[in-house]
Amino acid sequence: MIDIAVIGAGRIGRIHATNLHLHPGANLRCIVDVSKTAAAELAAHCDTQVGSLESVLGDASIQAIIIASSTNTHAELVEAAANAGKAIFCEKPLDLDVATAQKSLQVAEQQDVLLCVGFNRRHDPSFERVKKEIDTGSVGDVEVVSITSRDPSPPPADYIARSGGLFKDMMIHDFDMGRWLLGEEPIEVFAIGSVLVDEKIRTAGDIDTAVATLRTESGRLCQITNSRRCSYGYDQRIEVFGSAGMARAGNQRETLVETAGAAGYARDRALPFFLERYKDAYRIQLDRFLRVLNGEELELPTGIDGLRALQIADAAQRSSDSGLPVSL
Amino acid sequence: MIDIAVIGAGRIGRIHATNLHLHPGANLRCIVDVSKTAAAELAAHCDTQVGSLESVLGDASIQAIIIASSTNTHAELVEAAANAGKAIFCEKPLDLDVATAQKSLQVAEQQDVLLCVGFNRRHDPSFERVKKEIDTGSVGDVEVVSITSRDPSPPPADYIARSGGLFKDMMIHDFDMGRWLLGEEPIEVFAIGSVLVDEKIRTAGDIDTAVATLRTESGRLCQITNSRRCSYGYDQRIEVFGSAGMARAGNQRETLVETAGAAGYARDRALPFFLERYKDAYRIQLDRFLRVLNGEELELPTGIDGLRALQIADAAQRSSDSGLPVSL
Amino acid sequence: MIDIAVIGAGRIGRIHATNLHLHPGANLRCIVDVSKTAAAELAAHCDTQVGSLESVLGDASIQAIIIASSTNTHAELVEAAANAGKAIFCEKPLDLDVATAQKSLQVAEQQDVLLCVGFNRRHDPSFERVKKEIDTGSVGDVEVVSITSRDPSPPPADYIARSGGLFKDMMIHDFDMGRWLLGEEPIEVFAIGSVLVDEKIRTAGDIDTAVATLRTESGRLCQITNSRRCSYGYDQRIEVFGSAGMARAGNQRETLVETAGAAGYARDRALPFFLERYKDAYRIQLDRFLRVLNGEELELPTGIDGLRALQIADAAQRSSDSGLPVSL
Amino acid sequence: MIDIAVIGAGRIGRIHATNLHLHPGANLRCIVDVSKTAAAELAAHCDTQVGSLESVLGDASIQAIIIASSTNTHAELVEAAANAGKAIFCEKPLDLDVATAQKSLQVAEQQDVLLCVGFNRRHDPSFERVKKEIDTGSVGDVEVVSITSRDPSPPPADYIARSGGLFKDMMIHDFDMGRWLLGEEPIEVFAIGSVLVDEKIRTAGDIDTAVATLRTESGRLCQITNSRRCSYGYDQRIEVFGSAGMARAGNQRETLVETAGAAGYARDRALPFFLERYKDAYRIQLDRFLRVLNGEELELPTGIDGLRALQIADAAQRSSDSGLPVSL
Repeated sequence: MIDIAVIGAGRIGRIHATNLHLHPGANLRCIVDVSKTAAAELAAHCDTQVGSLESVLGDASIQAIIIASSTNTHAELVEAAANAGKAIFCEKPLDLDVATAQKSLQVAEQQDVLLCVGFNRRHDPSFERVKKEIDTGSVGDVEVVSITSRDPSPPPADYIARSGGLFKDMMIHDFDMGRWLLGEEPIEVFAIGSVLVDEKIRTAGDIDTAVATLRTESGRLCQITNSRRCSYGYDQRIEVFGSAGMARAGNQRETLVETAGAAGYARDRALPFFLERYKDAYRIQLDRFLRVLNGEELELPTGIDGLRALQIADAAQRSSDSGLPVSL
Repeated sequence: MIDIAVIGAGRIGRIHATNLHLHPGANLRCIVDVSKTAAAELAAHCDTQVGSLESVLGDASIQAIIIASSTNTHAELVEAAANAGKAIFCEKPLDLDVATAQKSLQVAEQQDVLLCVGFNRRHDPSFERVKKEIDTGSVGDVEVVSITSRDPSPPPADYIARSGGLFKDMMIHDFDMGRWLLGEEPIEVFAIGSVLVDEKIRTAGDIDTAVATLRTESGRLCQITNSRRCSYGYDQRIEVFGSAGMARAGNQRETLVETAGAAGYARDRALPFFLERYKDAYRIQLDRFLRVLNGEELELPTGIDGLRALQIADAAQRSSDSGLPVSL
Repeated sequence: MIDIAVIGAGRIGRIHATNLHLHPGANLRCIVDVSKTAAAELAAHCDTQVGSLESVLGDASIQAIIIASSTNTHAELVEAAANAGKAIFCEKPLDLDVATAQKSLQVAEQQDVLLCVGFNRRHDPSFERVKKEIDTGSVGDVEVVSITSRDPSPPPADYIARSGGLFKDMMIHDFDMGRWLLGEEPIEVFAIGSVLVDEKIRTAGDIDTAVATLRTESGRLCQITNSRRCSYGYDQRIEVFGSAGMARAGNQRETLVETAGAAGYARDRALPFFLERYKDAYRIQLDRFLRVLNGEELELPTGIDGLRALQIADAAQRSSDSGLPVSL
Repeated sequence: MIDIAVIGAGRIGRIHATNLHLHPGANLRCIVDVSKTAAAELAAHCDTQVGSLESVLGDASIQAIIIASSTNTHAELVEAAANAGKAIFCEKPLDLDVATAQKSLQVAEQQDVLLCVGFNRRHDPSFERVKKEIDTGSVGDVEVVSITSRDPSPPPADYIARSGGLFKDMMIHDFDMGRWLLGEEPIEVFAIGSVLVDEKIRTAGDIDTAVATLRTESGRLCQITNSRRCSYGYDQRIEVFGSAGMARAGNQRETLVETAGAAGYARDRALPFFLERYKDAYRIQLDRFLRVLNGEELELPTGIDGLRALQIADAAQRSSDSGLPVSL
């Protein structure tokens, strides 16, 4: 049984807390949030207590913490938790600033604590199966990875303002996915951003549509396309093309039903958004974090993965700003 | 909170007990089984007690019971539970004998207790969606229902011996599905059974492959095909054809992945068996039973549905034995 | 180069004449039809002459004839052509009457001429591929064949009146397909017909919706469903289920396009009707007939196949009329 | 009836000559090729004569010519045919050199002759349907176009050497498709090429794997991926994403068959190569060229389209060489 605390009672904190509440191997000790109301509401939902950061850090019986608070608190919390000797699961991104993220990583390394980063998509059974097809050789040598990621609708303008921009907020997931599936480190990124969805996003200094290309030393390539709007649901697809074949993961639908009539054949939209699409991935992710804490050897995305994806996102932003490719 | 007991600690009892254990509105009071070991094992798994039938029936605070014991005990338990004034959820079939099933229904009616029957497939989101397409008119007037149901492999010979035969054990689900989707009572059944899978099944007096045709008064038709063997998983499909269109539900796969290589394109097998395929349906089924106990108005398959499906199965057996269609 | 004449300038005669006109190995000598206008129109379309039955039968340089005239002339023409020593390709059915068909077959046998029957679907590349999957063993021992065949809309009432009824006019194709794919002769048929589409069809003494079940000696089964109406195009599907696996052929669409929007995903309807769906099959069918005439050894559906399918259709009609299964 | 000559008796010349031979509105007057043997062989196949360039240009009764000879002869032949007042259908690319292509275009314009360019994919029914979805508004404002184009295997090394490189030889089709579907002129291209398939291609100074990104003034984006190798057939897919929805065209397979067995579900590979995949497109393309010559108003890709695609391909090559985006 792992004693664990959740920092952050927002949308993502709620997912993690609920999954921990239902997990037979986790003892969810408390919820911490700057809003006592939010913390209390989530704690009640999960049959647990409201806690404070100090009490969590000072309580040696709490072995691990989940950092799901706002991005600007991540690095500081990672350091504090590492200094308190706790295993850490931190939501992406580690920070919007590469140097700050790097520093928090160093602390975690010095304290020799486990630091996992919340790249939930790596735990999606379909994407994981694509990875397995690569690892078992059925795809052959990877040549081109194509990633499509489209949100159903843009977030509120105030979220955009503090999000760090599309590359660090949204495409960072795809950069991690690209690294994972390419099997080699990208050495260059070229990115273009456009405002095609909402002029308010331009006003906020961000973009809402973007494509990026990654290249590795040996010439493997990755194409990514992102949009903040998608009329047919949450569009999450991956295709890996290699010397021996191809593996791809498509969208999930609500049901397995197909209808037909005078207008042709019809099927459901894709699942609405990440809560539905990655429900299993979120659950599996925390289960694996707990299993690693119990001594199992599993490969999980760590602080280094979080840092690398952030570095690519940072370079993509510079590429988009300058109109030139950026070396990594 | 509904206080509830589970009778039967076998494969199906375990599903129900686990779902009740995880349900926030259920208080799983105890597990009853003729095998104390099985009951204790399942009770431990679900954080509850081992009980006896007498204690359950005599305890007025237990509002409902789940009957998941062996088929030959169903009718007797339904009567006992009804006489004790408890709401009843009974696995299919109510009994292998139509008259016995009928008698237990009468007792439940006299005692005016809720009696639901475990036609889990009605709660499958995809099949339910097909039904909704009918109800909302997109299929038009139903003309032909086609149902495919194939188990991955035959059950053990001793199970076959006490199963009541393929029609009452397996195709009964499809008879219920046919009634539900046709929207009219079948008035005739014609069934043919073959032994194509395993000669031991013939020795046990049963068949392993069968097709049946149902006809309603107005001429609506239903075709069913069953097999006790299927190399590519648990094959569960429904297609409803009507004056305005068609709605169908296909098989579910483990992942959304498609691969391609020199041999062509490939996708996963269908999910292995009913535990995986109807996982959600089992959960939703009990949740609805509890919601009805809490006063919500929901349409659930009742004792009458259980009886009607049994009558069709019984007639199908007679049709298969005689080689002639049988009126219902 | 094969010299050949086409008898019948209707819809089917036109398909055959056009295919012969474009075939490099055929010399389309003339078109014969009771309507001189129709014959002249089709002859002009195909750069050939109008002929008379007498001239065709009396011209030793014409090696083969295509019989595509109305059904009630088939048997007589088969006999006349056989007696004239010509190779014969005859549209289905040979006749509406089993004994008459049988007699024409005897003449063809006595004269030792090739007699092919126009079961065009056997030449469809997709259905042929299903057959090949059976023949190469990937399906294992065939257990159940399921055939769906739905016309887009009912034919005119006067066509119905002289069609011989749905079983001999429409389902006869599926009976042939069933025989071909079962790999064993059916020994029993049970059929039910309903009028669900058009009351005029009932008035004409026919049905518009039907299902049938075939059984072979060893217990292999075949289910067929037919409708004279289908809102989403011409629905032509086959599924063969066996001990080792399954092979199925789906519907063809106009394009490979899929769209998605707020209402979900959409694809084209199935191809409109048999002219589009079996365009390749009609072409391949005649090409093979010519190749056999040139000495190649190919398996083509012959007069016996035409007779067997007619016998099953005849029995199906009697089954539907009597409500009882009929032995074959 | 249009009198027409075909220049070039190679693989593409053969497609065009055969289509003209079968076209009821074309009078294929002769085949011209530097190899008299090749010309004679194709002429025999198409029931026509061998001709010489001089005789074709000097014969006023020949209204149109098809240029399907080697690329380095295209521009010269366009000019000669234009000066002879003939309508021209020229295979892509017009030339490997932008200035030379431009000059030949000017001659065609001065002589006011029709000059069509062989972007056959625009005539593919599926891709055309995607375009129609855009034009009728179901996709909304186009935002991102994604194009996948993979050849089954690399061409011989000597073909590579005189091909002009992957961008002008292969991706030029996708640049045309991108322009067509974006609905706006690209103003920038960024391209990366890799050698991942065959080292001989590197030796020949070319690449075998490439991705490119196009951007228009308003920020619309296009991603293209090309490979000279594809284990599962000829991979030709297009996806257009817009404000209201998405339209995509997938690969075509030999048959409509799906099989299933212990290893899962399987379908055929994609069609082998362009002869099979674009068979209809080649036929439709020439039919439309003839219809325009007969006075019909149809939009066909013209010399300007050929030039624009070449300019993008040229810029893509410079981008790939320099590692920098190139303005158009």
